[in-house]
Amino acid sequence: MSTTGAAKKGLVAVEEARRFMVDCLVKSNTPPAHAKQQADLLVEADYRGHFSHGMNRLEMYINDLHKNACNGSAVPAVLNETPATAWVDGNNGLGAVVGNFCMDLAIRKAKEVGVGWVCAKRSNHYGIAGWYTLRAMNAGCIGMSMTNTSPLASPTRSKEAALGTNPISVGAPGKDGDGFVLDMATTAVAVGKIEMQRRKNEPIPVGWAQGPDGHPTTDASVAFDTACLMPLGGTELTSGYKGYGLGAMVEVFCGVLAGANYATKIRKWTHAGADSEADLGQCFVAINPACFAPGFEGRLSDLTGILRNMPMTDPNHPVLVAGDPELHHMAMVDKEGGLAYHVNQIKTCSELSERLGVKPIEVI
Amino acid sequence: MSTTGAAKKGLVAVEEARRFMVDCLVKSNTPPAHAKQQADLLVEADYRGHFSHGMNRLEMYINDLHKNACNGSAVPAVLNETPATAWVDGNNGLGAVVGNFCMDLAIRKAKEVGVGWVCAKRSNHYGIAGWYTLRAMNAGCIGMSMTNTSPLASPTRSKEAALGTNPISVGAPGKDGDGFVLDMATTAVAVGKIEMQRRKNEPIPVGWAQGPDGHPTTDASVAFDTACLMPLGGTELTSGYKGYGLGAMVEVFCGVLAGANYATKIRKWTHAGADSEADLGQCFVAINPACFAPGFEGRLSDLTGILRNMPMTDPNHPVLVAGDPELHHMAMVDKEGGLAYHVNQIKTCSELSERLGVKPIEVI
Repeated sequence: MSTTGAAKKGLVAVEEARRFMVDCLVKSNTPPAHAKQQADLLVEADYRGHFSHGMNRLEMYINDLHKNACNGSAVPAVLNETPATAWVDGNNGLGAVVGNFCMDLAIRKAKEVGVGWVCAKRSNHYGIAGWYTLRAMNAGCIGMSMTNTSPLASPTRSKEAALGTNPISVGAPGKDGDGFVLDMATTAVAVGKIEMQRRKNEPIPVGWAQGPDGHPTTDASVAFDTACLMPLGGTELTSGYKGYGLGAMVEVFCGVLAGANYATKIRKWTHAGADSEADLGQCFVAINPACFAPGFEGRLSDLTGILRNMPMTDPNHPVLVAGDPELHHMAMVDKEGGLAYHVNQIKTCSELSERLGVKPIEVI
Repeated sequence: MSTTGAAKKGLVAVEEARRFMVDCLVKSNTPPAHAKQQADLLVEADYRGHFSHGMNRLEMYINDLHKNACNGSAVPAVLNETPATAWVDGNNGLGAVVGNFCMDLAIRKAKEVGVGWVCAKRSNHYGIAGWYTLRAMNAGCIGMSMTNTSPLASPTRSKEAALGTNPISVGAPGKDGDGFVLDMATTAVAVGKIEMQRRKNEPIPVGWAQGPDGHPTTDASVAFDTACLMPLGGTELTSGYKGYGLGAMVEVFCGVLAGANYATKIRKWTHAGADSEADLGQCFVAINPACFAPGFEGRLSDLTGILRNMPMTDPNHPVLVAGDPELHHMAMVDKEGGLAYHVNQIKTCSELSERLGVKPIEVI
């Protein structure tokens, strides 16, 4: 069953990946129902090809849970509510638990009054932003989701980082399973892309990251050490201030609106387990398209069709719509019969299974 | 009173610019109350320093009105309504008339149920997107506004344009008049910036625009003739697909949700007066921050303070917050005592006053 690519890696069935994550989380002070929610989120990230946000993050969550920096059994609470809004206290629970709670509430409100706008404070890293918009799409709604994150990106003209990668996701359902799923950091790239260039000993393009002097660097090692990403658009000349503006917009809708930490007040990123609560702010929106012009799904698919069929600059690279690369990856996983994890990821899983006394992950 | 810069130009008092615009519109089949709304929008664009979107656009609106491509006396109508949403038919009215109607409705809903989400079909060019978010901010709300526009930007990998510059604006009020006002096209730059490089006979950076082969060009003349802007982020290597995704997102919230024209179905841009209805789609959102964590305005100003005080890469270029360049321009206009229009703009105004039999614009 396995392809060449998979043979060099460790192929793991999707359900086995989920089982392993649930087991690890349950052994880390997390009730099974919460462990399931967090695992579903992480597995979906891997299934969609965002390996940085799936199994790769499991150890970080486990470390936070063991240090009590995050409370695996916490249940979110509504602090204030109107027909179209809710302000939620995540009570320092797992990101997926808080996020699912908020998006489900937003969907319910969208079904009742057309829109649901829910903000949470005291949340934790919530994985791929697209998870929550997909949840809204599955309920027939347009979904929107944003989170603030630890400072890692510089405002235009600033020497230092003040904002996180602050992702935004918007998803809209089309006909017969078609859809539009935007899920993007508001920085030019994620740190992982710089890490890859560094490993290959290759330069990075101008506009990805700054050096310690605040100017763009093309040296991947300098960029990695400085850890100061540039906003989408890069330098001021190529309108990087727009990406900075979008990152700040996410901060306004998340940290500021929810009354959570924001900007430089958010703790530094750590994999080892934090010693304080993250208190991240997050925003979840559902819009019921049935309240507007009838036939939304048909028009959405007409738009995606127009875009996918635009004349190509390079005949080998068809025009894609947001969400298409993920659909291609999911089809590949289905064909190969599992998730192709890097050998180092499998090694980390083995270490986790020993550390937690969990049944080892089974590689096909 | 006039500075060197203004002396080379024609300084016009803000109220005189407004008077002239109202007179021209009234002579073009538009009732005074509608003319006033449209003029307020255009004057504000000039006051904020966005001269491309102010008096510069007056002639285009006048041409559309005389050709009946736009109906100056049309009043928008609500087609469907829920407590938090409204679907509006702009009835092919003036952009400002439709936009003000929709945003005022969104604000009312935000005061009642926390959020108002209003979409309009059959609208026209609505000027600076920020006008509508400022309206929400003045009512103590967070505002969001988007519009689709004539195709002028290529999806990543596409040889031709399929989306407009599709701007997005988000505005949030801070303390004592402070605020955050993002107002940006989702393309890297507007056509005007390419036009300026062309006039100066200087190249453009990679990532602004494509040539006829679909690849980025640095030749300003080629870029101007091709009229195919690149999305924010530029090429695929520097994540231009994110800007493309944002442009498509605006199209989903505008043309698709409202049931208006979208993407390649929108008529080509024309200054001479169009021969068909534009049927643009637009989206207006108001969110009442009082429904979430108390003290929003204070936190917003704390965030803008953090950003403005970040260490500078270049000591001569302080870090700005979205909306700051506009505040600086408004202060300059106040100091100079008027709007410094280019001599060619004054010439166009003279021609318009003759053509329409309107009292000429008075230059200080």
